[in-house]
Amino acid sequence: MSNTDPVALSADLIRCASVTPEEGGALTLLETRLAAAGFDCVRADRNGIANLFARWGPKGHPRSFGFNGHTDVVPVGDLAEWSVPPFAAVECDGVLYGRGACDMKSGVAAFAAAAMDFVRDTPPKGAIILAITGDEEGDAQDGTLALLDHMAKAGEAMSVCLVGEPTCRERVGDMIKIGRRGSLNAWLTVTGSQGHVAYPQRARNPLSALVRLLDRLAHHELDQGTDYFDASTLAITTIDTGNPATNVIPAQCRATVNIRFNDSHSGDSLSLWLRDQADMIAQKFGVEITTEIKVSGESFLTPPGPLPDLIKGAIKTETGITPELSTSGGTSDARFVKNHCPVVEVGLVGKTMHQVDEHVEIDQIHQLKALYTRILRDYFA
Amino acid sequence: MSNTDPVALSADLIRCASVTPEEGGALTLLETRLAAAGFDCVRADRNGIANLFARWGPKGHPRSFGFNGHTDVVPVGDLAEWSVPPFAAVECDGVLYGRGACDMKSGVAAFAAAAMDFVRDTPPKGAIILAITGDEEGDAQDGTLALLDHMAKAGEAMSVCLVGEPTCRERVGDMIKIGRRGSLNAWLTVTGSQGHVAYPQRARNPLSALVRLLDRLAHHELDQGTDYFDASTLAITTIDTGNPATNVIPAQCRATVNIRFNDSHSGDSLSLWLRDQADMIAQKFGVEITTEIKVSGESFLTPPGPLPDLIKGAIKTETGITPELSTSGGTSDARFVKNHCPVVEVGLVGKTMHQVDEHVEIDQIHQLKALYTRILRDYFA
Repeated sequence: MSNTDPVALSADLIRCASVTPEEGGALTLLETRLAAAGFDCVRADRNGIANLFARWGPKGHPRSFGFNGHTDVVPVGDLAEWSVPPFAAVECDGVLYGRGACDMKSGVAAFAAAAMDFVRDTPPKGAIILAITGDEEGDAQDGTLALLDHMAKAGEAMSVCLVGEPTCRERVGDMIKIGRRGSLNAWLTVTGSQGHVAYPQRARNPLSALVRLLDRLAHHELDQGTDYFDASTLAITTIDTGNPATNVIPAQCRATVNIRFNDSHSGDSLSLWLRDQADMIAQKFGVEITTEIKVSGESFLTPPGPLPDLIKGAIKTETGITPELSTSGGTSDARFVKNHCPVVEVGLVGKTMHQVDEHVEIDQIHQLKALYTRILRDYFA
Repeated sequence: MSNTDPVALSADLIRCASVTPEEGGALTLLETRLAAAGFDCVRADRNGIANLFARWGPKGHPRSFGFNGHTDVVPVGDLAEWSVPPFAAVECDGVLYGRGACDMKSGVAAFAAAAMDFVRDTPPKGAIILAITGDEEGDAQDGTLALLDHMAKAGEAMSVCLVGEPTCRERVGDMIKIGRRGSLNAWLTVTGSQGHVAYPQRARNPLSALVRLLDRLAHHELDQGTDYFDASTLAITTIDTGNPATNVIPAQCRATVNIRFNDSHSGDSLSLWLRDQADMIAQKFGVEITTEIKVSGESFLTPPGPLPDLIKGAIKTETGITPELSTSGGTSDARFVKNHCPVVEVGLVGKTMHQVDEHVEIDQIHQLKALYTRILRDYFA
């Protein structure tokens, strides 16, 4: 049998229009291919979200290497801005175009191709597990979480896990992620009392309080970074009032801030800090401030050790590069997997993720398949 | 003929939903009533704004007493917060509720009722002029200005003018206004660069710059007041962004501030200060800030003299109160009238103007009509 072409598989996946929460045929395609390659496949769908669990080798084996990824993609945005149809998988001058080309259908194709060929060519003593979801870009409540719940119930387990998200800056292998910052959103609503702008002393202007609060929050140094993490950041993402009258002080205004935080904080400690700051300002300005907070993920770290070392070694052997160990960037499903087993992320160059004309260099898909194959070989050696 | 009930007339006017620039039937109603009482009425409409000029007595008489007021009202704001329908003119426990009850349909009703009954009971040697506009709360470019233009062209003139805006604190007659602070609005637009919230260092967040700028502006002491003027004030009236995505730093945001200023500033000096502050912040934060400024009126003063003395005397006789001479509060069309003749403002208690559940005590409408009648009697004595 010939080797699995990860580029053809990427293109086939891109042609499935799987914008969250649509499955679009992507997981069905993978299930068919993996089953034919000898994988036991189970769909772990939940609340209308499709998820695929696939295992080659014995259940519950102490050497079970896991891959995690997603086939859902973000919306195409303004279609008129695209140079190519976003679900046509156009190949041109060594580049594959399409929504999901980079984040992360080519990553899924690379690890599926690597796994299928590896078990055929050098059947390992152990198991290889692929946990692939259709809900990473959305709420993510019925995606990798549903796969992990399925595994717990079915007695399935991964010993270690590689998440195939795009992690690299310029070349495949130049960065791996060994953790992620946490993230929380806070929705602030300040209520004062309305009044005529000529008599500010008779009104309580919620905007005066809000700008003082936000100026303090935005310019407060949360920390200076830790051993493996950049400094935590806070960004104001919107302030809205909707008062069209230039002679009226409004009664209420709203703002949203996002905090990306490292391991010197937790969602709880930051929530406490935010509420304290809001309370101080509310008291000082005589307004009411409500603070609704949602922690989308705590920070986590897979400290340097066997799994990062294995992957660093494989990258060095395969590409000659010594990868940077990073915890930068947005959240990923690694935040769920880390509660199950050690997890590291390594994948393609992420430059065009979520953008129009998302694309990936075809050579890099082949390089990634080769890297994943090397990682499997080293793991089972 | 029975006396004109100023409360019934106020209620009739409140039932006209005359949110600027809508006439809502208010001026048509007054025109009908005044014409029936023997006033020559002319509509001085301009650019879709309705204005009513009414005169009893000979044109161009050297004793022409003028009243000025407006029938337009500010928007109702959040309708759900109102205890009564804002245009229903509900009367309850001696109180009349409705948008415009206080600012200033009851004031217009009081002077119209006083003028109509006065010319019937004691026809004066001279003229009484009512110049009533439908554009005081808006741009005010086609309101009292249009009435004054009409008068200049038609050879009409007021010898003195009383603006019936709500001026009092607790009781009718406790405060008259002999001048007003100036007013300017500044529209600020801050442009940075968009980016992912996880990488704030790659974006330039316009909101961080805006909150710093607004916090500085809002908490800067412009002055401590002058002989006849309170301290100048600055109020933020709105901040808007319209960014629904919690993971995106927006490229742009906008805010509006209003300054009410005394005679230690001018529109020009404050514009210069605002632009300086904006430029400093723009440079510090690496963003672009555009500042659009509109001066709606410079500060002015009708110094103590015959007209204020006449009105003080009438108030003392009618109510026993010695009124405070003030220049506090918002702009009013007195800023236009002062270029035409001496002008003083006296009207209702202004506590609930522009607020939800705007209301006025019914007794005070009767008191105001009686006061206006006394002023006419003393003027024509």
